[in-house]
Amino acid sequence: MTAHESNERHSRRLGTNESAVRRRSAGQHTVRRHNLALVLGEVAGPQPLSRAGVAARTGLTRGTVSSLVEELIGAGLVSELAAARGGPGRPASPLQLDPRGPAGLGLEVGVDAVGACVVDLTGTVRAQRTARSDHRDDAPDAGLATVAALAREVVAQARLPIAGATVALPGVVTADGVLERAPNLPRWVDVAVGEALRSRLGGLPVRPGNEADLAALAERWAGGPPDAVVVSGGIGVGAGVLLDGTLFAGAGGRAGEIGHVVVEPDGRACHCGGRGCLETVAGLEALLDRANAPDLDALVATHPDAVRAAGRALGIALAGAVHLLDVPAVVLGGAYPRCGPLLLDAVRAELDARVFSRSRVDVRFSTLGPDAALRGAATTVVQEVLADPGAVLAGNGVGAAGTSL
Amino acid sequence: MTAHESNERHSRRLGTNESAVRRRSAGQHTVRRHNLALVLGEVAGPQPLSRAGVAARTGLTRGTVSSLVEELIGAGLVSELAAARGGPGRPASPLQLDPRGPAGLGLEVGVDAVGACVVDLTGTVRAQRTARSDHRDDAPDAGLATVAALAREVVAQARLPIAGATVALPGVVTADGVLERAPNLPRWVDVAVGEALRSRLGGLPVRPGNEADLAALAERWAGGPPDAVVVSGGIGVGAGVLLDGTLFAGAGGRAGEIGHVVVEPDGRACHCGGRGCLETVAGLEALLDRANAPDLDALVATHPDAVRAAGRALGIALAGAVHLLDVPAVVLGGAYPRCGPLLLDAVRAELDARVFSRSRVDVRFSTLGPDAALRGAATTVVQEVLADPGAVLAGNGVGAAGTSL
Repeated sequence: MTAHESNERHSRRLGTNESAVRRRSAGQHTVRRHNLALVLGEVAGPQPLSRAGVAARTGLTRGTVSSLVEELIGAGLVSELAAARGGPGRPASPLQLDPRGPAGLGLEVGVDAVGACVVDLTGTVRAQRTARSDHRDDAPDAGLATVAALAREVVAQARLPIAGATVALPGVVTADGVLERAPNLPRWVDVAVGEALRSRLGGLPVRPGNEADLAALAERWAGGPPDAVVVSGGIGVGAGVLLDGTLFAGAGGRAGEIGHVVVEPDGRACHCGGRGCLETVAGLEALLDRANAPDLDALVATHPDAVRAAGRALGIALAGAVHLLDVPAVVLGGAYPRCGPLLLDAVRAELDARVFSRSRVDVRFSTLGPDAALRGAATTVVQEVLADPGAVLAGNGVGAAGTSL
Repeated sequence: MTAHESNERHSRRLGTNESAVRRRSAGQHTVRRHNLALVLGEVAGPQPLSRAGVAARTGLTRGTVSSLVEELIGAGLVSELAAARGGPGRPASPLQLDPRGPAGLGLEVGVDAVGACVVDLTGTVRAQRTARSDHRDDAPDAGLATVAALAREVVAQARLPIAGATVALPGVVTADGVLERAPNLPRWVDVAVGEALRSRLGGLPVRPGNEADLAALAERWAGGPPDAVVVSGGIGVGAGVLLDGTLFAGAGGRAGEIGHVVVEPDGRACHCGGRGCLETVAGLEALLDRANAPDLDALVATHPDAVRAAGRALGIALAGAVHLLDVPAVVLGGAYPRCGPLLLDAVRAELDARVFSRSRVDVRFSTLGPDAALRGAATTVVQEVLADPGAVLAGNGVGAAGTSL
């Protein structure tokens, strides 16, 4: 897969075909833009490089590299550390991504929570806020106002220029950036969340994405397996499917809705309108309801059978996913790591018994915690800046917004 | 998706990374090869074109087109019809694909049948034989000998040069062309079917593919929907997943194993080692066993409940597939069309009740009949010749074999 192809898929999945970045990329300065991205990619790499080092690795001339580096420094994307004598000849100044440069704003509207965070160019979280906020009975406006307020707080706190935002949503986001439906938010139907937040945030570009997809990308960026089903367990249960390290979109960007795979054909009614979906057994609320437990920690301590039943249901749905998608690994995230080895063992036992088409499926818990989708949302913006710094230099697309919203 | 990308995926799915065609495609004559394919593609199009017509449509000069057409005629790929006066000026001779040109050999080793057919460049079946032959208790050698004998018969009958062969298999074919496992053929484990048949067929290149995948491609080439799950119902139940008109491979080429999606968690033992797989309810043999019916026609006439139960199980598994893969259409092939509206209505009802993430799923029967995979297998070879006629002209890769095996 080419990088372009990969980006195409990715952005299709994240809900827009027309980011300002890509719209401009067929312009006159294609070679220069390509080289800017090449140089920035080297600066972002694991080992510190001087201008000479970048030239050696890219095959560009010293002069070209210096000119491009000056532009990147001018745009606040790169900074140059104090010169260090690196052998004979002139002193070499290591280059680095500038932590004061354009940052990514991640937002999340969950079923019963909201969140906002700012991640800088180096990948460091510079500000983060999450809050309880139940949206099950509300119209979208209330939830959007809440998350917009939180966004303003973290941006004020981070004091960085904001390149753009991605908002994680607990439902189906179509290729054109509309939240089509969220089974646990019955009043959120066909909501143009990106547009609505953009107007609440002073024109900042806001792209909507499915929360499980963004958590899956975060998993990958944290070093997770390139081919995997990454399950996000909460009140709703979703998954992001990674193939070759990028999100699998399916035909229309809705792929990965594992929460509505049937595990009990005659089971309980699901919020989606179906019956016996995975979510009715292994969704957080369903799990607590069935065991009549006040919270997850109490459940794990006192109702091991309920945890095992959830693990079995997860294993049944995942066996289907492995057979249909042919993925060698499963990552269980969201609230699932809090269920501990009882859950993990039950999932593994079910997959071992049911998957015939490949050697043992690698099943593990996510180590990213419940904020994976939020962090993933912010990081998509940073990744986009790194992939096309020319858009920032051109002063349009991402990077156009200032420090206040 | 680029054509190259599409081909990469396709061939990955069909079980080889090293077809002779592609190995040579980075050679010195890239532009000429590209133009040969371009011209042949125009000749293969829906309306008859003369050399002038091809020049007009491709932007190549008349001289270039004539030279390329002469090469294609020389290789037996194109023939020129008698001149017809097409307006003022010189008479225009319509070009066509040569039905005497290099043909594709399709082979199939099913659970209880074998088949072979020859499809010419124009897509016409020129010879076909199928026979009952049960391989459930046999080692692979017996089945391979049977299908090789059938191959020799159809090739002798068709009297065409054979460009290559694809063999459809009822199991998991890995990216490197090995039949990894076929749940209904317990002794066929890790069999290099392509190599084995090649040596039995005088060195003819033979590529293995999953039968449901090849049936799905046949469906697409017959004008079916570009995004669909194409289910192949027999003793085993498999599916080929089409996205953007090409096969979805998953991470390792094994995607689409819908027969082992769980529909009855505590159901009957499956040949795969699991329990309650779709195949245990909607596989042909399971269906007949459950109703104690002698054949499918008797079953449909006398046991409507069994047919409805199979339809319900198919609907449950397909609801999962639609949620995971996000496909808008389902085609039911193999033996399923013989079950009639009882089955179709049950599948539709289940999908309508269970799929929340998109508007109604289009469910239809295949009209290709039980030979879809066999025809698809032969057509993959023809498609490959059309995509790279330069390989035939070079006398290597497909097209090197003669009329006798």
